[in-house]
Amino acid sequence: MTREEVEAYLKEHIPLSAAMAIKIVAAGPDGVSIEVPLGPNLNHRATAFGGSVAALAILAGWTLVHLRLKEEGLVTRTVVQSSSVDYDAPIHGTFTAVTEPVEPLKWEKFVRAITRHGKGRIGIAANVVAEGGAAARYTGAYVAIQGRKGAGEG
Amino acid sequence: MTREEVEAYLKEHIPLSAAMAIKIVAAGPDGVSIEVPLGPNLNHRATAFGGSVAALAILAGWTLVHLRLKEEGLVTRTVVQSSSVDYDAPIHGTFTAVTEPVEPLKWEKFVRAITRHGKGRIGIAANVVAEGGAAARYTGAYVAIQGRKGAGEG
Repeated sequence: MTREEVEAYLKEHIPLSAAMAIKIVAAGPDGVSIEVPLGPNLNHRATAFGGSVAALAILAGWTLVHLRLKEEGLVTRTVVQSSSVDYDAPIHGTFTAVTEPVEPLKWEKFVRAITRHGKGRIGIAANVVAEGGAAARYTGAYVAIQGRKGAGEG
Repeated sequence: MTREEVEAYLKEHIPLSAAMAIKIVAAGPDGVSIEVPLGPNLNHRATAFGGSVAALAILAGWTLVHLRLKEEGLVTRTVVQSSSVDYDAPIHGTFTAVTEPVEPLKWEKFVRAITRHGKGRIGIAANVVAEGGAAARYTGAYVAIQGRKGAGEG
């Protein structure tokens, strides 16, 4: 999938991502970066709404897991199981969620759990950056459940 | 502030809350409940997007702190410092974030910190319910910083 295809997929299937005006900066098995402008993601203080920051990071993590599983040829449904955000600094402009690299051994264990037991769980970390600086840190856990061929989405 | 006023305030100042189509079910110092329809908050599985669930809970917690501080006559700016969501069940329809009651002693300590030191921090918990059942659990920490008279919003 190209960046444009990923963006179109997300905007079509997750309407809030369209409302947030997401732009895919990078999307591949090595990492996902998704950017949003401040306008639709403002809070009452004219900085970024914490809910937008969380939603963006959750989306980046999900997209990374989804793309990597797709590359493995696995048909799964993947959902977020838990999400945590620490907000370190107010955001005054465009901001971007950037996933951290996934340790190869951790990924292998995740894939093995899916192929052997039909279900796996993996932790994904991401940073939210704005104006070149760190603004928030995210960790999320995602669960992938193997589907029948043709039963999975995307 | 009436429910209608709170809803109008949030939709005006936090555009994502309008995109999510929030409806204030209850909003007072004893608790805040905010409901959203599934449509604008869908994910790729036709259930609720985890990012919408997180954003709704963050908003409910923030609104509770904001309304209670307003009732105390305190002029502050209040922001979310950390947010955590555990997703327990997929959501197939309208869902609501409902704050848990705040322990009186905890609240008093928070207010005392603001009035004495100009800054306080409080943890708020909320449950996200759908179709009468529990779907997700939220905890968030909010920081309030005392502003000069007239400097605070809302």
